[in-house]
Amino acid sequence: MDLSKQVATLEFWFEFASTYSYVAAMRIEALCRASNVPLVWRPFLLGPIFELQGWNDSHYNLNPRRGAYMWRDLERLCAKFGLPWQKPSVFPRATILPARIAIANVAQPWIGEFVRRTYVANFGEDRDIGTREVESEILAALDLDPEPILENALAAANKPLLRDATQRAVAMGICGAPNCVVGDELFWGEETLEDAIAWALPGNGEAAKFRA
Amino acid sequence: MDLSKQVATLEFWFEFASTYSYVAAMRIEALCRASNVPLVWRPFLLGPIFELQGWNDSHYNLNPRRGAYMWRDLERLCAKFGLPWQKPSVFPRATILPARIAIANVAQPWIGEFVRRTYVANFGEDRDIGTREVESEILAALDLDPEPILENALAAANKPLLRDATQRAVAMGICGAPNCVVGDELFWGEETLEDAIAWALPGNGEAAKFRA
Repeated sequence: MDLSKQVATLEFWFEFASTYSYVAAMRIEALCRASNVPLVWRPFLLGPIFELQGWNDSHYNLNPRRGAYMWRDLERLCAKFGLPWQKPSVFPRATILPARIAIANVAQPWIGEFVRRTYVANFGEDRDIGTREVESEILAALDLDPEPILENALAAANKPLLRDATQRAVAMGICGAPNCVVGDELFWGEETLEDAIAWALPGNGEAAKFRA
Repeated sequence: MDLSKQVATLEFWFEFASTYSYVAAMRIEALCRASNVPLVWRPFLLGPIFELQGWNDSHYNLNPRRGAYMWRDLERLCAKFGLPWQKPSVFPRATILPARIAIANVAQPWIGEFVRRTYVANFGEDRDIGTREVESEILAALDLDPEPILENALAAANKPLLRDATQRAVAMGICGAPNCVVGDELFWGEETLEDAIAWALPGNGEAAKFRA
């Protein structure tokens, strides 16, 4: 079997509190589908990654020049891609609850829609996605029964999943979010989606150029 | 006169020591020409901008995780765009000399080629672009007489130009390099060139979407 002719899987590593992850999360499933690249959703927590870099908060809060640019850039990117945008009144929001729901359900057919609705609640509607109330509403809107999903997400047995994912992110050299991971290759930033997809397609001209 | 139908000028703000500026500087003139967007080269120094953010070195050196990602990303971007790449043995290099040559000659027909050759010397050939020797060689290769250009660049009368440019960069909220500036709009990063050009073209579909 010629592995160079195989399509690689694209892992999308995201954090629900991350603004640039929002823009990317809204686009990644459609882009992968259009290129027949298998997508795996990989929720993780940025907090421990920021701590490794000596930060106790988002660097957008710690560095006001950087923050000012990011807020304008997000507004512009959302206009460009036709995404709802409302600057959240709390940033970054606590995202353990939606991250635990997501990681316990990455193989469910509703995972993509759950991720997108949670992001829109945070960055398009300024809602507190860290609460059972908001998450229940999102799950119910997907015609799911929220209670068993919330109980399962919050169960002790589910706790190691998110911790392990975050440790794997550290080991892979992840510095922020979002990231696409294709094989050993890490692509960081909302602007890298197309390059990551090209990397996953071995017969693709861009991927061939990358490898040259 | 309907200003909304005018093409805006694109200012390209760059620092010769900046890796992502290299990738962008190699592409910006051809991209602008293809869209009939007037281009103005704006050299500046990142040092004072980094100091404002509390850094006494490139954040790629101060933050090894961030640095490791950047070096791999640069290698990959250079392969993607067909640019020469050799990781420089000194980073960041002192760039006052080429920045002063550039700022004294932004209106010369050879400015674009001078900028590109200086970048290739730094990031494609690992040469010390802060030296008269290397800069003389680059100017001579452009069929110019290096000595009067170097003398003029180093003259006291030229010193305020670079300082003023850097102060203007601070005032505009610039955090790093490269940047495209179109009117009051700041686009940061090598990946923003196309968006900045779209912004400069009022009749363009993307620009219209941005403004929606």
